[in-house]
Amino acid sequence: MAGVPKAKAILLIGDGLGDRPVADLGGKTPLEAANKPGMDRIAAEGEVGLMDPIAPGVRAGSDTSHLAILGYDPYRYYTGRGPFEAAGIGMDVKQGDISFRCNFSTVDDSMTVIDRRAGRIVEGTDQLAAGVDGMRIEDVRALFKESVAHRGALVLRGPGLGADVSDTDPHEEGAKVHKCEPTAAGDEAAAKTARIVNEFVKRSYEALNNHPVNVARREQGLNPANIILPRGAGLAPDLRNFDERYGLKSACVAETGLIKGVAKYVGMTIVDAPGATGGLDSDIMAMGRAIVEALESHNFILCNVKGGDVAGHDNQPAAKVALIERLDEMVRFLLDRAGSETYIVLTSDHSTPVAVMDHSGDPVPIAFWGPGVRTDACKSFGERPAATGGVGRIRGVDVMNMITNLMGVQEKFGA
Amino acid sequence: MAGVPKAKAILLIGDGLGDRPVADLGGKTPLEAANKPGMDRIAAEGEVGLMDPIAPGVRAGSDTSHLAILGYDPYRYYTGRGPFEAAGIGMDVKQGDISFRCNFSTVDDSMTVIDRRAGRIVEGTDQLAAGVDGMRIEDVRALFKESVAHRGALVLRGPGLGADVSDTDPHEEGAKVHKCEPTAAGDEAAAKTARIVNEFVKRSYEALNNHPVNVARREQGLNPANIILPRGAGLAPDLRNFDERYGLKSACVAETGLIKGVAKYVGMTIVDAPGATGGLDSDIMAMGRAIVEALESHNFILCNVKGGDVAGHDNQPAAKVALIERLDEMVRFLLDRAGSETYIVLTSDHSTPVAVMDHSGDPVPIAFWGPGVRTDACKSFGERPAATGGVGRIRGVDVMNMITNLMGVQEKFGA
Repeated sequence: MAGVPKAKAILLIGDGLGDRPVADLGGKTPLEAANKPGMDRIAAEGEVGLMDPIAPGVRAGSDTSHLAILGYDPYRYYTGRGPFEAAGIGMDVKQGDISFRCNFSTVDDSMTVIDRRAGRIVEGTDQLAAGVDGMRIEDVRALFKESVAHRGALVLRGPGLGADVSDTDPHEEGAKVHKCEPTAAGDEAAAKTARIVNEFVKRSYEALNNHPVNVARREQGLNPANIILPRGAGLAPDLRNFDERYGLKSACVAETGLIKGVAKYVGMTIVDAPGATGGLDSDIMAMGRAIVEALESHNFILCNVKGGDVAGHDNQPAAKVALIERLDEMVRFLLDRAGSETYIVLTSDHSTPVAVMDHSGDPVPIAFWGPGVRTDACKSFGERPAATGGVGRIRGVDVMNMITNLMGVQEKFGA
Repeated sequence: MAGVPKAKAILLIGDGLGDRPVADLGGKTPLEAANKPGMDRIAAEGEVGLMDPIAPGVRAGSDTSHLAILGYDPYRYYTGRGPFEAAGIGMDVKQGDISFRCNFSTVDDSMTVIDRRAGRIVEGTDQLAAGVDGMRIEDVRALFKESVAHRGALVLRGPGLGADVSDTDPHEEGAKVHKCEPTAAGDEAAAKTARIVNEFVKRSYEALNNHPVNVARREQGLNPANIILPRGAGLAPDLRNFDERYGLKSACVAETGLIKGVAKYVGMTIVDAPGATGGLDSDIMAMGRAIVEALESHNFILCNVKGGDVAGHDNQPAAKVALIERLDEMVRFLLDRAGSETYIVLTSDHSTPVAVMDHSGDPVPIAFWGPGVRTDACKSFGERPAATGGVGRIRGVDVMNMITNLMGVQEKFGA
């Protein structure tokens, strides 16, 4: 596109920011109740609307929503949490791998699950993981890495594997470890995966039951993390590289493994921000500084700030308002440093209403700020004001087309 | 639909009318800045909204947009520019033909391209075309017709042809003519097409190198148009006839070959308007008269007025405003002559913002005027006013369903 200089863009996603009217906030939503001059400036100078991450009313996860917002239809590409969680904790997941979320659990010698979370173990899981990582079962390599607390991920790499298998985690205590089985008869690839998984679970018990970490735990009266239970099998999907697809040089500043995993999986550079914890106490300004720094060598930054979602899950409206006000400080920092060719797109990946204490299917506000946008009459960044804006109601999969259109980097379809 | 009389409809598309706020126009868009009582009457008495020709943010071509607006999903049916360009210059393209855009070019006797546009030749291309048109290569007929200046189109008709072949045009001067090749190994149909194309290129050189037109050009010191280089192969798609599909009797009043090509391809009658040049000086009123005349024997008229797009590409906001005001005169003429059963649907095929100087993915206003529409509060035909209208935000592929619904000619889907 002649005449349009090469622009930069920041896509800032406040995780779970959307909400419903809250009685304790005088019938306002947390976004409507918060004092947020930065976000309101973006709304007033920009073009505002509502976005359904997936489709109206559909309750999105953070992973499916981010996939959609980055332009990958989750109905086509979301093949379970396993692949994105494994990528998110730094595992090198390749297309075709079968990935699982796992728990370290406690079993007795009859394979009955005593504690699904192994006493919510915090320390030593790296040593336990080292005891099982890299084992070879038949012609398959089993890669394992610990995540936060009792969590971890298993990646199976080898020929002829299928993802349609059941969980080994019985999802309740007092039940026996489930045998992994193909979900459909005659699925040879799934049967192979199930065989490998069952062998992995057996060997994990053999490797971990008397592992020094667990010997020490028993001595302290703690449940040993003496087995690994995979669940949520997913085939790593074939996603086109984000930068190649859009002609961008992108980076991601995020707090949680899940978002980093999605970003890494589509090929974004992951930038760490020290002190960004994903909690309500996170150093949000550190993320702002990381964005500004990353913009020197990249022209597209995805940033996810997690805290709003945490407050929503915990039914803490005041904490959610406070988080929004702290996030607004970062927004003002970005506005101060945005060059004349920088776009800021402000939105959320889903609503997490405090009254629901989980993700809901309510749409979220979205605002496009930067040169050439059709500024509308909406002056405030909130759920109800956004419904009056010029953008109308769009979907997550529209967002990257709208951003690359503004940036002037999108190829024309047709003549 | 009982009780609804047979109605007529005019779908008036101002090419590239949509824009972004322009500083020189006081922050208004050209549509917002123009004095256009006719369009504003349509908005005030009609129902208004925003339309994404393809999808939000997607930069549409005029061909893909018109296909979408006529109800043919371009992601399914747009098979390259070749078929629609060839139809647009009056060639009788049939489903299954392989069509190419072509340049008359200048090569030396080693087949190195000296001038891709043959000195931007203007005259004599009809005589050159006659020298190659209709040749038979194997069991394939090669039809060729000149277009404007150094341009032309090639249509291959015969059994067993495929479209997945590379360009012969090297797209740079000083390079040799490229050999046409299948883009995938083992594609027999593409291999046949490639063989025919290479033979056509060779024979075009033999027929044109010493053609009297080129002898004369050399004498004048001009580059000879001594070869034809096809590119952009496209398989003519299987589109259902427009009139059969919608139960209409349609005609098209348009200025450019590309739009006439799309309209002709779906089976519309093409009506010429003398003096309609496609430029800023076009006789727009002549098109208005052609519409009114065509409505006597047809009940659906598609009209495309090109000038707004030209002003956008040329970064001329004042000229774009002036073009809109001249188009408004035609709108008022149509309003004066519209019977009580005539609908006017006013929109654009894409935005061509003057600041961008090319098509953008910003949505365009659309207004539906005629009996029974749900008149809303929007009183003005412009980008920002349209965002407040009752139609909301729709897509190009919705338009014909909305028109045939109003006209009462659409069959019910279900009981």
